[in-house]
Amino acid sequence: MNGKFILGDCQISMYRNLSDRFSLLAWRTTPPEISWLMAQAIETPGLISLAAGFVDQESLPNEFAAKYMREMFERNRSGQSALQYGTTQGDLVLRQHLIERLAGEGVFHPAAEIDESHVLIGSGSQQILYLAAEAFLDENDIVLLEAPTYFVVLGVFKTRGARTIGIDTDAYGIVPKKVEEVLLQLKAQAKLGRVKMLYVMSYATNPMGITLAFERRRQLLEILQRFRDDGYPILLLEDAAYRRLCFEQPVMPPIKSFEADNDLVLYTESLSKSLSPGIRLGFGVGPKPIIDKMTDIKGNHDFGSANLSQQFLKRMLISREFDAHTEQLRQIYAQKRDAVLQILRETFPAEVEWLNPAGGFYCWITLPSSFDTGPHGAIFQQALKEKVLYVPGCLCYSADRPESRHSSSMRLAYGMIEVEQLQEGCKRLARALERSLSLTT
Amino acid sequence: MNGKFILGDCQISMYRNLSDRFSLLAWRTTPPEISWLMAQAIETPGLISLAAGFVDQESLPNEFAAKYMREMFERNRSGQSALQYGTTQGDLVLRQHLIERLAGEGVFHPAAEIDESHVLIGSGSQQILYLAAEAFLDENDIVLLEAPTYFVVLGVFKTRGARTIGIDTDAYGIVPKKVEEVLLQLKAQAKLGRVKMLYVMSYATNPMGITLAFERRRQLLEILQRFRDDGYPILLLEDAAYRRLCFEQPVMPPIKSFEADNDLVLYTESLSKSLSPGIRLGFGVGPKPIIDKMTDIKGNHDFGSANLSQQFLKRMLISREFDAHTEQLRQIYAQKRDAVLQILRETFPAEVEWLNPAGGFYCWITLPSSFDTGPHGAIFQQALKEKVLYVPGCLCYSADRPESRHSSSMRLAYGMIEVEQLQEGCKRLARALERSLSLTT
Repeated sequence: MNGKFILGDCQISMYRNLSDRFSLLAWRTTPPEISWLMAQAIETPGLISLAAGFVDQESLPNEFAAKYMREMFERNRSGQSALQYGTTQGDLVLRQHLIERLAGEGVFHPAAEIDESHVLIGSGSQQILYLAAEAFLDENDIVLLEAPTYFVVLGVFKTRGARTIGIDTDAYGIVPKKVEEVLLQLKAQAKLGRVKMLYVMSYATNPMGITLAFERRRQLLEILQRFRDDGYPILLLEDAAYRRLCFEQPVMPPIKSFEADNDLVLYTESLSKSLSPGIRLGFGVGPKPIIDKMTDIKGNHDFGSANLSQQFLKRMLISREFDAHTEQLRQIYAQKRDAVLQILRETFPAEVEWLNPAGGFYCWITLPSSFDTGPHGAIFQQALKEKVLYVPGCLCYSADRPESRHSSSMRLAYGMIEVEQLQEGCKRLARALERSLSLTT
Repeated sequence: MNGKFILGDCQISMYRNLSDRFSLLAWRTTPPEISWLMAQAIETPGLISLAAGFVDQESLPNEFAAKYMREMFERNRSGQSALQYGTTQGDLVLRQHLIERLAGEGVFHPAAEIDESHVLIGSGSQQILYLAAEAFLDENDIVLLEAPTYFVVLGVFKTRGARTIGIDTDAYGIVPKKVEEVLLQLKAQAKLGRVKMLYVMSYATNPMGITLAFERRRQLLEILQRFRDDGYPILLLEDAAYRRLCFEQPVMPPIKSFEADNDLVLYTESLSKSLSPGIRLGFGVGPKPIIDKMTDIKGNHDFGSANLSQQFLKRMLISREFDAHTEQLRQIYAQKRDAVLQILRETFPAEVEWLNPAGGFYCWITLPSSFDTGPHGAIFQQALKEKVLYVPGCLCYSADRPESRHSSSMRLAYGMIEVEQLQEGCKRLARALERSLSLTT
């Protein structure tokens, strides 16, 4: 790590490069495995990537955007105000509109009395996750999360020195009973004081594409409320990034909606999937002391997310086109999902199973448990030979889970790629699987 | 901090609220004192704030922006690409253009071989400072900086548990000899291994408005190079936020330009002052391992700054209008400075001194040392009575300096306010000073 030598009481330090002097956080920050996968993609001409979680390019609302940009810069006053600093917490009218919209969508408990002071605008919901990690996690703290989970967040928690515990997750989402069991175990080990957070995706999850069952939402919150009453409040970080991309609408209410006292759940949503990743905006809604603290931390980061993007988003959200646009997106992704599922049914070996995506653009595939889909395994190599790329399931598991070393699952992403390419990619993957499976049986 | 009780070997933890469970970083993050000042401003109707470091509103380039926004959204392809994800490090063509431009401006040593791989685009140069702090600073590490310095950065270093040491700074900038003395003292105390960073603003500083003398630039680098050769590489974080707003152009070369081997200096610049704070963009240029690590950390923050802003900035920077626009800004701020200096000369008591701003929009005022300009002192209260606000000098000093408790200086900002209001504000301040000074003599 660095060139420190301890000689008795005398400490001699010698460093050759500045990078020998990185912080602990820096040493814990590693390039995400996904960048290595992307590099593979770039180095293999003609490769079809079913790995990248990008959104559909053609559906990005260019005309809609052009119209509101024009409107914004038409007058000096509104144009200049978009080019000026905003506030760290985010544009007031934007926050007010978000609260109004979310309340109308049933995101909050009627008794919760949530207003614009409970919202923080972030540079994507990713930044909200990062700020929450900064606000709560010290070295050796514990975060509970789904197994499998959104892999980027595993990296974030790791950089803070936190320990992640993966909780059993099935086709109906994370299993509340397992959450409770793990918390009771930790209590027995006198480690409950270390548990700071439960991170849950509640809609069309990345990587499983499934939506948490209604009853489980209430159960999760009730468990955390019991532990809170017992003296151990734990943050429930509810990531609803894909809520607006669920194929069946209206969707069921989020975990947040069961909470009358707004004191445990930090609800986050992204505008990247439902509108544009390029504006880089998302938001968090939660208990005031948490939002206030995260706002102060964000002040040190960047004084607030791009005001230009926020002024633009405000116009887009208030417009009539926004809901029509997300409805259109749902249709586009549902069509892609149908195309993918059809080709999986037609071409994939009988031993392979998959979950039906409830929204978003991820499909979770499982092979018999004797197979290893990892980046150094035969299946991944065979897929590369066939010029197709997937995300190995092992990357989506917390280090405490055996699946983080040996996993027979994979994540396919159908967001960005056109239907024909998707079909071709799936066919290639089918050939790779067919070959790998037949070689070993 | 929280409700932990140690009973012999048995640790009992009881927390009532989630906010009892904040991380150390969160506890160290306090709202900047400046927000308290701003709150004062809002609560006092008719108050003129000479405290806020905002840019001139009227000069924000609305028409220029409208033109390039139109151009961008005119075609589906460029519009959609602005609305899509970018890369974490920042748009490639934007980075290439920045390097070309900076090289042409003499920012780099001819032998340094700096290219686009050495640049990271951030959400303002503030985010570059934050990422550098994350990349290097562990608890009890040491940062050297100017006394007085940019106060926001003091807060950032504090949240990382670092110790800041304020170095004597005069009208020609930070004093290299003092930097060397402090480093030698720390060496004698066997604490040199803890020194990670020297943070220096090299142009029209916040808060002093002065530009670091030519000879001192070379001296600072030479000192750090000697310590590097001795086994202690220290990052020189060069903040050139106000370089493009220096009144005399061309400006002298930055510290970065003296460095042939690109291994100690991380140069940062902001587009907030020279173009628009609302696009929230800045950048850092430095050693590749540092840029790579900061890019990985930024990946966890936000996957990269708003691509919409970057695509827009790229067009603005490459345009012919950009340099003409910054030239116009320099004239506007020079006029404001002249107006402020004239009114200071005409109305301020003879005991009061000030530095002539070399650019930007800050003017540093000093009273005789027996006076206290702090927020709880008589002068500040008198100013509030006169309905005028300034930034007390004490906020700009590192905690190790006596000036952080008792300072007789203040920062006036003339960026945002119109000339007439500026004059009126200065007159009010003159009355407050006159009254305070006569009361005590």
